[in-house]
Amino acid sequence: MRRDARRAVLGMVALAGAGAAQAAEGMWLPSQAPALADRLRQAGLAIPPERLADLAAAPMGAIASLGGCSASFVSPDGLVVTNHHCVLGSIQFNASADRNLIRDGFLARTRAEELPAAPGSRVFVIEALDDVTRAMMAGITPKLTGAARIRALEANRKAIVAACEAEPGTRCEVRSYFAGSQYWRQKMLEIRDVRLVHAPAGSVGNFGGDIDNWQWPRHTGDYSFYRAYVGPDGKPAAFAAENVPYRPRAHLRIARDDLKEGDFVLIAGFPGVTERFRTAAETEGWYGRIYPRQQRMLADYSALIERESASEADRIAYASIKAGADNYAKKIAGQLDVAKQFGLVGLKQSADARLGQWAAQQANRRTHGRAIAEYDSIAVEALAADEARLVNATLNRAQLLSAARTLYRWANEQMKPDAEREPGYQERDRQAVIDRLSAIDRRYVARIDRAILEQALGEVATLPASKRNTALEAKIAELGLDRLYQDTSLAARDERLAWLDRPVADFIASTDPFIQVAVAGYAQDMAAEARRKDLDGRLDAARVPWIQAVRAHAASEGRLLYPDANGSLRFTFGHVKGRPTRDGEAWTAFTTAAGVLAKDTGKDPFDSPPALLSALREGKWGALGSAALGTLPVNFLSTTDITNGNSGSAVMNARGELVGLAFDGTLEGMLSDWWFDDATTRTIAVDARYMRFVMGRVDGAGHLLREMGAD
Amino acid sequence: MRRDARRAVLGMVALAGAGAAQAAEGMWLPSQAPALADRLRQAGLAIPPERLADLAAAPMGAIASLGGCSASFVSPDGLVVTNHHCVLGSIQFNASADRNLIRDGFLARTRAEELPAAPGSRVFVIEALDDVTRAMMAGITPKLTGAARIRALEANRKAIVAACEAEPGTRCEVRSYFAGSQYWRQKMLEIRDVRLVHAPAGSVGNFGGDIDNWQWPRHTGDYSFYRAYVGPDGKPAAFAAENVPYRPRAHLRIARDDLKEGDFVLIAGFPGVTERFRTAAETEGWYGRIYPRQQRMLADYSALIERESASEADRIAYASIKAGADNYAKKIAGQLDVAKQFGLVGLKQSADARLGQWAAQQANRRTHGRAIAEYDSIAVEALAADEARLVNATLNRAQLLSAARTLYRWANEQMKPDAEREPGYQERDRQAVIDRLSAIDRRYVARIDRAILEQALGEVATLPASKRNTALEAKIAELGLDRLYQDTSLAARDERLAWLDRPVADFIASTDPFIQVAVAGYAQDMAAEARRKDLDGRLDAARVPWIQAVRAHAASEGRLLYPDANGSLRFTFGHVKGRPTRDGEAWTAFTTAAGVLAKDTGKDPFDSPPALLSALREGKWGALGSAALGTLPVNFLSTTDITNGNSGSAVMNARGELVGLAFDGTLEGMLSDWWFDDATTRTIAVDARYMRFVMGRVDGAGHLLREMGAD
Repeated sequence: MRRDARRAVLGMVALAGAGAAQAAEGMWLPSQAPALADRLRQAGLAIPPERLADLAAAPMGAIASLGGCSASFVSPDGLVVTNHHCVLGSIQFNASADRNLIRDGFLARTRAEELPAAPGSRVFVIEALDDVTRAMMAGITPKLTGAARIRALEANRKAIVAACEAEPGTRCEVRSYFAGSQYWRQKMLEIRDVRLVHAPAGSVGNFGGDIDNWQWPRHTGDYSFYRAYVGPDGKPAAFAAENVPYRPRAHLRIARDDLKEGDFVLIAGFPGVTERFRTAAETEGWYGRIYPRQQRMLADYSALIERESASEADRIAYASIKAGADNYAKKIAGQLDVAKQFGLVGLKQSADARLGQWAAQQANRRTHGRAIAEYDSIAVEALAADEARLVNATLNRAQLLSAARTLYRWANEQMKPDAEREPGYQERDRQAVIDRLSAIDRRYVARIDRAILEQALGEVATLPASKRNTALEAKIAELGLDRLYQDTSLAARDERLAWLDRPVADFIASTDPFIQVAVAGYAQDMAAEARRKDLDGRLDAARVPWIQAVRAHAASEGRLLYPDANGSLRFTFGHVKGRPTRDGEAWTAFTTAAGVLAKDTGKDPFDSPPALLSALREGKWGALGSAALGTLPVNFLSTTDITNGNSGSAVMNARGELVGLAFDGTLEGMLSDWWFDDATTRTIAVDARYMRFVMGRVDGAGHLLREMGAD
Repeated sequence: MRRDARRAVLGMVALAGAGAAQAAEGMWLPSQAPALADRLRQAGLAIPPERLADLAAAPMGAIASLGGCSASFVSPDGLVVTNHHCVLGSIQFNASADRNLIRDGFLARTRAEELPAAPGSRVFVIEALDDVTRAMMAGITPKLTGAARIRALEANRKAIVAACEAEPGTRCEVRSYFAGSQYWRQKMLEIRDVRLVHAPAGSVGNFGGDIDNWQWPRHTGDYSFYRAYVGPDGKPAAFAAENVPYRPRAHLRIARDDLKEGDFVLIAGFPGVTERFRTAAETEGWYGRIYPRQQRMLADYSALIERESASEADRIAYASIKAGADNYAKKIAGQLDVAKQFGLVGLKQSADARLGQWAAQQANRRTHGRAIAEYDSIAVEALAADEARLVNATLNRAQLLSAARTLYRWANEQMKPDAEREPGYQERDRQAVIDRLSAIDRRYVARIDRAILEQALGEVATLPASKRNTALEAKIAELGLDRLYQDTSLAARDERLAWLDRPVADFIASTDPFIQVAVAGYAQDMAAEARRKDLDGRLDAARVPWIQAVRAHAASEGRLLYPDANGSLRFTFGHVKGRPTRDGEAWTAFTTAAGVLAKDTGKDPFDSPPALLSALREGKWGALGSAALGTLPVNFLSTTDITNGNSGSAVMNARGELVGLAFDGTLEGMLSDWWFDDATTRTIAVDARYMRFVMGRVDGAGHLLREMGAD
């Protein structure tokens, strides 16, 4: 999901009941499908609802994660469709001065022409989602200190993951659901040979750019294709010429029927994070203090990069980092705007009040009351810690400092048995760490990195000493920034990687200034981490009885709850639907070819390829025209519940056939990380017919359409 | 109709076919109803279509003209409903320093409290509409000069009107239809005792003011009530205490059913002027040259009034004049914008080309060809004359100069038998002339009038001498503006009126400087008028064969034509319907109570009365809430064909019951004076339920609701 906030959400009228009849709230676990069967059928799902619980069959069996984005298989030969913005790193990785793939797009005319995706790119195929709550809670008692609780949970988690990952090529994750009251293990096939197959021109895939981000009406062709490869034995393998296309257990078919306003849609993917179970006090802390500060820090960061970028090369190097910062700063600004507009804190307050009233009427009101009070008190403590953590994290924007700290931590963790190492520093994380350390080459300019560090030092200086890493700061001051950047050898990739697996003593003896800083700061880092873990443990312990009260309250009202998004596989369903905006005005459900032509100015970000413009002007839609609209649909809105991480998610019709790809929400949807508003929240998807039109009529990708059975 | 143009019509996408299925184009003559019967039934009319041809029965029998506005009877006791902006002059007439009726509104709690409408106010009841083409064409031969043709037509018209008006209290008009190829006589009962019954607060009746004018979404309560009185004998009479309410032959009932999107609606009223039969060359002349100049002259005029108004009294005096100028300037600006956007000239060119192609294939192609060529050539001559006429007309903005010219013309015309006098200067026009001369008192400030005259003199100076009244200008220069305004006695109403009916010799002998100017300019005025009449006559003669070709062309394609609007009774029908705006966005058909609250800022023009705001916030709609919307409708859009003059027109449902009052169009509708675009043209009406809500719940007008049977 991407964005451009701040623009007037003004004057929007929350129309009572406008979407209530087909409430689209809910990021459901596949296992919840049977419990939702009636609602799914009533909403229009035409396949047996129980099928959504079957991860081995279509449609859910065709859904894959890219780690941060969602995707789906659309051919028996491992062809994967996702958003253009999800493969941007791979397009960039393959681009060069004389091959501007970002601008021109890319098409492999044969499999031999497919390009390796950026290092670290993965396609994760979900093989199972199992409840492991019992195993996770083994040995957990209320008497444990916070730190001990966290240690025990980590140990249990590692044991579960290690057992699960015993099978080669398997990646397992255990995530917390319902605020730590349930744990599920997501077992995935980790496909490491991922190749870029097709991306449209940047002016299609990112049409409207930052200006249109988070906006409707929208006209973005945000789609691209990867292909998953495995070794000749069918097992995941590193990139190799002899690898063969992965044959997924299921793939999605491309819908033939006219998708139109009111139609049922289903979206499956991997929503990242939501905070819908947060209390009013937590909401106030974040929206009143932490988010505003984070937004300001990100804006300063972005402005600094802009200011310090002296050449096109500088700008290219920092493009992705800056875009990320801008994106996030704007998202926060938008969240703040929307929260204010909807009175988010008030909504949370009344939800808390309803819970409190209900709890006070229950037989076990003391238990509930204590749970609520205890959680509230620890949550306030956590708010202060969260703010300090965010501020201290700005230091790691300095990439060599961050690399040095990672490497020294790795060295320290290496001294423990693998199972006892901190997550992120285990053997299973080795490749990811290497990829991260390698990526610096593509996005590092010493002068800019130095300015970033200087800015971060100014930022942490605003914290009280007790919340800072004073030893680290003192070492930096002692060495001085000139020496740090002149004398370090970490700017060279090989030098950086050479530090991996070296013993702690080597670090301590090193004269590399960044290594010295990392060593100097380590003890305080560890102390801060221990304090944080203890707090996390206490928070976790307090949250479980609190969420039990919340769930009991919901059950008493016959409400089925879904867990907060946590990056695991979910589905959401709703309908293709516009919405009223201001009184007397509305968004219609679809945008169309005419809108692309009307928006096109010939200038970035509204500079469609001339071939696309001609094809749209020609207006021969053939089977791709919507009978209902009388033209080619481009993007559409639906009443579904998605968030970051859902980008690239398949949008399916009542029969589970692909009708589009989710790629964004609208400004009001930013509220939905903390509160879902049925009347206003909409998902923006690119219509599969637009994708097919551009592929077939503009980009000559007929062979891919044939492969998908969509020619 | 009112307006505020220029605002972005940008990016509007004319969506193909969006309204084609229920084409709403057509300002139909009541007599055309039988020919339209199938279309009316198909569109949803639930009463026999032929009933629309019956002027003695509801619904058409309930429709009345206010002369410039439309209205309808809504009770057996002569209660008339129209737009607030149509009775504004009467509100203003009755207002005083300590009785701010414009701001506060007015309600007669009893009939005794009803106030006389502004002098000259009329309610015209249509008694008959008869084809008098034969009588009008008597003696008209192609050989007549233009001037002779006009004289003959005038003579015929006067004879028809005089015969028709022989009956006391009757007013008759003969208008040209289909560009002079038909003439119909509209026979009307002229009710002269008109009283103001009720007007809501200005902030209801003109909510949104100039800002919202011609805009959607709209939230204006643009309704007010008059009552028509007649003498105790039932005949029209001047205002008198013993007069009794007029009992109309028919009155409209107030609809009880929920009006909702898609419903059939019928509008009956008196559309003023459209130019839909104009050729491409004429269109180019007006849109390329004349309108832009007119717009600039009006803007200068308004700016001058603004600049010269030194006090609140000045501003009040010129409020109506300035509003009229602003309104018209903006209307023209909007027309120019919209014409450009839609490519009006190109549309006309292709229509002309189609006509030409068709004509070339007909047996009588020579006749048609010559008709088309001749009309085109005279039309070009007329364009230059039209421009000069508009520029010269700015002199009459100086009210005393205009009064002097009127009075001297009157004196000259008095020397002829009544039937031979120029229309507007006949005995039947006496009261209107007196009213106009009297009205100056309410809107005249010498200093401002002088500045206006100075500006106009600068304007006419740009014309070639041959197109100016050089004698008049020379006299003004000779006397000088100081003397004109110091020495005139015309600023006093009695002095002005005393000149009416005085002989020409008195004028010639007068030392009043304005009278001297009028006398000095008279000969050139008469010469210009003669030239203009000759041109008009030639235009008229050329237009008849041209329009015959146009009609034959339409008939060959099975198209039923309607005549251009000319101020006579028409009906139009369509449906309650929003429309797409930009791709992905739409206007919904209704605005609602929430929109009034959202727009209200407490500042003019968004300063609803507090009692209205409370009532809207309370939200108890009772029977006035729309079941479909779940709230109180305020304004609605429909696919109907109206223009200036339709203001106040009854909007009726399928059963001919009142559901609202038309009061405006949207920017694109400004195209419709020259070209009707089904997809974008919409009428804006105030929903009768909003009117009833404000009357009953805010203004205490329950007795009027009861009188209408709508309590």
